[in-house]
Amino acid sequence: MQTAPCIVQKFGGTSVGNPERIRHVARRVMEEIDKGNRVVVVVSAMGHSTDELIELAKTISSRPHGREMDALLATGEQVSAALLAMALIELGQPACSLTGWQVGIETNHIYGSARMLRIRTDRLQMLLDAGKVPVVCGFQGVVDGNITTLGRGGSDTTAVALAAALKAKRCDIYTDVTGVFTTDPRVVPQAQKLSQVSYDEMLELAGLGAQVLHPRAVETAKAFGVPLTVRSTFQHEEGTMVVETVEMVERQKSVTGIAFEREVARLALIGVPLQKHGLAVVFGKLADIGVNVDVIVQSVVQEETVDVSFTVSESDALRSLDALKSLQSELQFSDIQMETGLGKVSIVGAGMITHPGVAAEMFSCLAESGIPVSMVSTSEMKISCMIRGQQVDTAVTALHRQFLEESPTVNTHVEFA
Amino acid sequence: MQTAPCIVQKFGGTSVGNPERIRHVARRVMEEIDKGNRVVVVVSAMGHSTDELIELAKTISSRPHGREMDALLATGEQVSAALLAMALIELGQPACSLTGWQVGIETNHIYGSARMLRIRTDRLQMLLDAGKVPVVCGFQGVVDGNITTLGRGGSDTTAVALAAALKAKRCDIYTDVTGVFTTDPRVVPQAQKLSQVSYDEMLELAGLGAQVLHPRAVETAKAFGVPLTVRSTFQHEEGTMVVETVEMVERQKSVTGIAFEREVARLALIGVPLQKHGLAVVFGKLADIGVNVDVIVQSVVQEETVDVSFTVSESDALRSLDALKSLQSELQFSDIQMETGLGKVSIVGAGMITHPGVAAEMFSCLAESGIPVSMVSTSEMKISCMIRGQQVDTAVTALHRQFLEESPTVNTHVEFA
Repeated sequence: MQTAPCIVQKFGGTSVGNPERIRHVARRVMEEIDKGNRVVVVVSAMGHSTDELIELAKTISSRPHGREMDALLATGEQVSAALLAMALIELGQPACSLTGWQVGIETNHIYGSARMLRIRTDRLQMLLDAGKVPVVCGFQGVVDGNITTLGRGGSDTTAVALAAALKAKRCDIYTDVTGVFTTDPRVVPQAQKLSQVSYDEMLELAGLGAQVLHPRAVETAKAFGVPLTVRSTFQHEEGTMVVETVEMVERQKSVTGIAFEREVARLALIGVPLQKHGLAVVFGKLADIGVNVDVIVQSVVQEETVDVSFTVSESDALRSLDALKSLQSELQFSDIQMETGLGKVSIVGAGMITHPGVAAEMFSCLAESGIPVSMVSTSEMKISCMIRGQQVDTAVTALHRQFLEESPTVNTHVEFA
Repeated sequence: MQTAPCIVQKFGGTSVGNPERIRHVARRVMEEIDKGNRVVVVVSAMGHSTDELIELAKTISSRPHGREMDALLATGEQVSAALLAMALIELGQPACSLTGWQVGIETNHIYGSARMLRIRTDRLQMLLDAGKVPVVCGFQGVVDGNITTLGRGGSDTTAVALAAALKAKRCDIYTDVTGVFTTDPRVVPQAQKLSQVSYDEMLELAGLGAQVLHPRAVETAKAFGVPLTVRSTFQHEEGTMVVETVEMVERQKSVTGIAFEREVARLALIGVPLQKHGLAVVFGKLADIGVNVDVIVQSVVQEETVDVSFTVSESDALRSLDALKSLQSELQFSDIQMETGLGKVSIVGAGMITHPGVAAEMFSCLAESGIPVSMVSTSEMKISCMIRGQQVDTAVTALHRQFLEESPTVNTHVEFA
């Protein structure tokens, strides 16, 4: 007997934001079941409930204990999973909510940003075999009988990891947008939905602020070859497929999308003596306090010293500054500078590497728009420029027009009238 | 080495109703630790959060699925336990929140009103030995990897059961009243706090609506000989001790307290044929649908048939009526009657059985207050009368004056001046 294909559906916080939406999500699940699929659902906490729990904890302690914070936050998904299971049962579909420990999502001990080590599938398989829909709490796991949470992007990652563990046909990420766009349509109304995007492009787009899919989820999908789609919970239209290689018909443009980020801060250490292995100490220290460093630029000013600039999110800027000041006597650099209110714009595209001159086109486009660039960083499929934060919208609009709204050149056939 | 005595402290929903109160509760816990005790804390959900979760579920389903309802409701205690653990840690006291499954509180499969079957103490002992305060979620357990809740009075019962399992010196139930009173002070301002009350009296007082301690908790305390106190979270004064036998100095009055209940309904089956084993069928059916029947009165009207009257809470009245109607063809009774808006007043006292005439005194007191009695029920230590609901306050006030505010007769010595 052939078992029906298995699909993992993940619904984010907005999708389960209130009881009416939860009932809507239940009908979305039924559509997939009516097509003959077996479905595992992963849910986030309702709406802003996680933020509300964080606020609650902060009224008790300015630095809430990690283990207790995770026990607290994990309740958010438990609520939405139980309610969605109820809604499915109300539609006549047997369903069963499962927390991280109930599934057996084993993680490491890093409370607040735990990594999944192992996923048990026996209970999920048993439920699927019994014709039930498992409704799994995203974002959480268990280690030695303690509740852990996976941190930002955790629910997406839970969904992708479950799809990998269950060898699912597909992992569908349902969200409040209809797919992945060439850039944020709120900034550029001309932005277009991509029908396909590669894992690598998605990584650059997500990591740079597209905020549709978390990089951890994309990395996991890429690692296990899980076909991913991003689609709307509320509108019935095709979403964006995230796949290993985008079909050639799509590959006509060197740039796939424009990503951007706001509220970026730049920190600079001036005159770091070369022999001190300063870079390793600096970035080791920042990693220890959990600060993600983005663009790093180092320049040799004199023979004996270097200047190092790097960017962090504005919310991490002050504690990064404090941490670096504590290193001054050890590293003997001459000065620290901090600049806030910056932004970053990036052009992303797997085809970029085969199109020399794209960087030059980007710089001249920004220059023509009167936007000075303070730092540049490049990789195989993206070029990022640090600019003033208040110029981000202008830059994204100009770059989108330059790279993604050109009059059709390829595939245009000329009619001989 | 002598280990410090262990005390279980239980804090109800009002006591942990907001972050400020949670911080206050943490200080209450510290007071007991500062006396050299080891403390296990049991908490209820914050304020009205359980009711809010029930409302949420009802927007999804008019009859929410039992397993999912329990998964939903269990989050309430998980929130308060995590927050209290944070608050203790903030005071420098290591603490660790534990859900039902994390402790290992194993129950049967009756979702919504599960019974505890076994409590593991290894994790609790390990935490105590490490100098940590376990903060246990009341009201919940686990069966076969599924979350269960214990139903009404569950948190009190969790606390008492943990005290029994840990052979604790004492179980302190912290609540928003300062102890057990001779009756509800909101109805009778002259009500006095009892310094001691026996398990059996407490059972009658609690079961009859004193609402301070749930009967399940008292039964468990009695069964395992756990010394219980009821005391205020907010006021520093001695509470009421609930013990096996009240010291004789207290035993001067035949009546210990006046209990009462409102919103009671009376159902009556008229003309039930004797040979049909009607009573077993009727009360079996009501038990099946989870209705608690209180006072039962049966009277033989004719030789072949009986009339049966019994009381249920008003909230159970309509579904009880429906259930009984479905039995009419089987049992061939001639009619069903239902009366709502009733109340019950009871006088309770372990000394009552040795004081004949107490019943007569009660009836004449009610008669003098112009209160007709529709049903009477008696046991070794209580006499209950069903009356009109709107006469409950008058009845309680009159009975309290009659039995508990008499001018001192015993222990009064006459001064020969």
